[in-house]
Parts: sequence; structure tokens; C-alpha cells
Amino acid sequence: MMKIGIVTVSDRASRGEYEDLSGPAVMAELERYILSKWETHVHIVPDERDEISAALVELSEVNGCSLIITTGGTGPAPRDITPEATRDVLEKELPGLGEAMRAVSLKKVPTAVLSRQIAGIRGSTLIINLPGSPKAIAECLEAVIAAVPDCMDLIGAPDITLDPSLIHSHRPHKLH
Amino acid sequence: MMKIGIVTVSDRASRGEYEDLSGPAVMAELERYILSKWETHVHIVPDERDEISAALVELSEVNGCSLIITTGGTGPAPRDITPEATRDVLEKELPGLGEAMRAVSLKKVPTAVLSRQIAGIRGSTLIINLPGSPKAIAECLEAVIAAVPDCMDLIGAPDITLDPSLIHSHRPHKLH
Amino acid sequence: MMKIGIVTVSDRASRGEYEDLSGPAVMAELERYILSKWETHVHIVPDERDEISAALVELSEVNGCSLIITTGGTGPAPRDITPEATRDVLEKELPGLGEAMRAVSLKKVPTAVLSRQIAGIRGSTLIINLPGSPKAIAECLEAVIAAVPDCMDLIGAPDITLDPSLIHSHRPHKLH
Repeated sequence: MMKIGIVTVSDRASRGEYEDLSGPAVMAELERYILSKWETHVHIVPDERDEISAALVELSEVNGCSLIITTGGTGPAPRDITPEATRDVLEKELPGLGEAMRAVSLKKVPTAVLSRQIAGIRGSTLIINLPGSPKAIAECLEAVIAAVPDCMDLIGAPDITLDPSLIHSHRPHKLH
Repeated sequence: MMKIGIVTVSDRASRGEYEDLSGPAVMAELERYILSKWETHVHIVPDERDEISAALVELSEVNGCSLIITTGGTGPAPRDITPEATRDVLEKELPGLGEAMRAVSLKKVPTAVLSRQIAGIRGSTLIINLPGSPKAIAECLEAVIAAVPDCMDLIGAPDITLDPSLIHSHRPHKLH
Repeated sequence: MMKIGIVTVSDRASRGEYEDLSGPAVMAELERYILSKWETHVHIVPDERDEISAALVELSEVNGCSLIITTGGTGPAPRDITPEATRDVLEKELPGLGEAMRAVSLKKVPTAVLSRQIAGIRGSTLIINLPGSPKAIAECLEAVIAAVPDCMDLIGAPDITLDPSLIHSHRPHKLH
């Protein structure tokens, strides 16, 4: 069964100063799209480069997640460090996902150019940074989710099926 | 009061072989957009990586500029080195600004794909590379200027107000 | 006369397990666009970082190619390593070409976001990664070919003329 990691990156949520709304928003979007069975592993970490990286490595190597979604920490503020922490553990960057997410968000708000999210591969795990706001999470995930099944096929992850009434996932590399 | 640095990168302009038209073009665009008070620090430097980097560090750390705009040196020619010199002094790259500027320019000229400009943060300073031609300066600045006030809010820079009759600046992080 | 290198990156094609269709597809597209005289140097290499890099260096420095097109090895699969091998030998990256190619492909297939191709300059050579599928080769080359003559002018390459009935190449830096 496919395992998916969700990492909320937020100083305040990690200290319990407010409720994490971003992680549940990612979860709700994934539940909406994914028809096949999956289980989730959830982390809430502060905006600390080493702690973010450590969560990604644990989810990839210990928990065997094929997909990890981070949320938060992708802006230009001093504490925003998620893209750097992600790049630290990636073996291959996939620049197209960040480009596509920014291009879609830019049609909504001009500040989308400030978003620094990246994506890439570590071993058999696809890692995608999403922004922190629930509205932006939905927009950005919609911009790239159709490519996730093909990426899973290419990196040898378990099968994932998206709801065809919501999104058409092109899968040229699917093994029958 | 907000301080803005303008760095013209050009071998010939720095030697006085021709008049710098790029720096004044940046200045004219900023004067058109910015309603709040600001003062400017201007440098003209040759296409030398160390000299460009040194100008950026001086404007950021000695002069206290919250925004630095460079113009010139962003193409593929042998002497074009502004993006590398900028990356040398950035702490965080903001890939979305370069992407957005190239996407806008590409609607005008197919050679926009050759433009290598980047942007990012050093300390409390946003640094943006613009191309050298006055026409491209106006197009590229228009593509990203609406995000500058929010970026200033996020990095703790002085307040900046753009002319709302020209551009709507989305400021979700403004402190009242 | 302009020299153009074509590098097919494929484990199976390099072992002769199947016919290389990608290299000939690149050649056919170049023959369609380029009116001026050119000669070609062709390599077929496995998905090995060192062998790809060595082919690029040889084509640039020994064969004097002004333009090198690679095809294949740009996806997220474990053996796909062409962008990294290319970056190893580039002096300047041109991010706009990869961005423009992905943006065009994304209008056709959602999996275009998984494409990692890059481009850039080594010495007096422009190197462009293209994907491996003949259909994607045509789409991606069409997205950037109009900028190639200007880039050649800027890096001091021999003159190249594209068929004006197919594409309008903007050449602001052409020496008369």
C-alpha cells in the first residue's frame, strides 16, 4: 500500500501555539484525489533546516513513503527555509513542479512570484513543497497532481489511482 | 525612509565610453511606481563578478538598501556575469521572479529565453536582476513590482507604497 | 561552417538493443529549420554521467561544435542523469530554455512538469537538453529554436540562418 508523508513546517504549530490547518488541508486534498488505498505519516516541525531534513529522510527511508508533501516555509521571510532543507536531501530536482505551481498561483495573486517551493526525488520518494495557506495548497496541488502517478511509475512506487472525474492522469510508463 | 540601490553593470558605461541609459531607465520606472518617500544609491560597475558582488554587499550592508535593482549583464555573452555575481551574495534565491520576467518577455521576443536574470534575499535586502535594455527594464519590472511591497513586509523593510492607479500590490503580511 | 553535435543518451540504444530514433528525430528537425550549411557530429552514449559529460566536452572542444543537442535521460527515473551531466560541464546555465520548453509541453501533457531538461553555455558552445520522444523533441525544439541564432551571435559562433517561412529568428546582436 502506498505511504504518503505530510510535513507541516511551522514554528508556531510545532510549539502548539495554534492548530495546524495546513497539514489537514493537504490531507483533505489528497483524500479528494486518490481512489487507491494509502496510509499517511504526519510530522509537524519548526522552521529549522536540520529538523525539516531529518523528517524528510525518516519518512523516505524509515517509513517508506513514496510521496512526501511539505506545507509552509516556502516564502522569503527570514525563518522560511523549507526549500533549502528539501534540496539538502534531494538527489534530483524537478524544477517543472515549482515553475508550474508558481505560474498557476500567479494568475491568482501577484505575490506568487515570492514562492520558492521546489520538488524532486530522493531514492524512491517524490518530495513536493507546497505553500502554507490552505487556499494555495489546493491551487498548487491541482497544478501538479496529474503528473504524480506517472512519476510514481517511473521511480518504482506502489500503484496510485486518481479520481478520473477530477483529474486525468497521463501514465505513459505504467506497467500492466 | 526606504533606500534603493541601482547597479548598472556595463564595461563600457563604467569606463565612461557611453552614457548609462539603463540606470536612469530603472530610476524613471521606480519614480513612476513608488508613491512613498525613498532615496537612491547608484553604482556603475564593469562586468566583473567581484566588483558586482562588492557593490551589492556595500548597498545592502553599508547603505542599508532594502531593494537593489541591477541592470545589464544577464545574457549568454562571455562577459555577462551578473546572475552569478548576484547568486554569490544571496542567502535565498527567489526563482519565481526570473521565471515571471522571462515569461512576460517571451510574449514579446523569442530571445527572452536567453535572459538569465535571478532574484533573491540577502539579509533584509531584496535583490532583483533586470536586463539592460530600457524597454526590457520596463516590461520586466512591471512583471514583478506588485510583489515587492509584500516582500518588503516579510523581510522587515521600511514601508513602500505603490501607485494604486498603476498597480495593485497585494499585501497579506502588512502590519497595521 | 557551423558544427552541431547530437548526443542520444540511452542505455539500450548505446548497446544496440534497439534503433536510435531520437537522434535522427533531432537531425530531421534541424534539417527542417536550418537553411545555412552545417555539419553534424553524432554520439550515442549510455545513461552514465561521466560518459555524457565526456561526449559534451569532446563535441565542444575537439570537434568545435557551436550547438549541441542532447536527447533522452531528462526524466525522474533512476537512470535519468542527463541534466546533471550537462550541468557538470556548463559555465553558464540558461534557465529560460528549460522553463519555456516545459511550459509549451505542459499545454500538451500534464507529465511535462516531470521533465528536467536544462540548457547553457560552455565556452563558445550552446548545449540544450531535449527529451527522448520524437514528438516531444519537435515541440520543445520549436519552443526555443528562434533564440538560437541570437545566442550564436552572442557567443561568437558561425552564422546560422533559419527558414523564415517556419520561424522568425530575432537577431538584435547580428554583426553586418
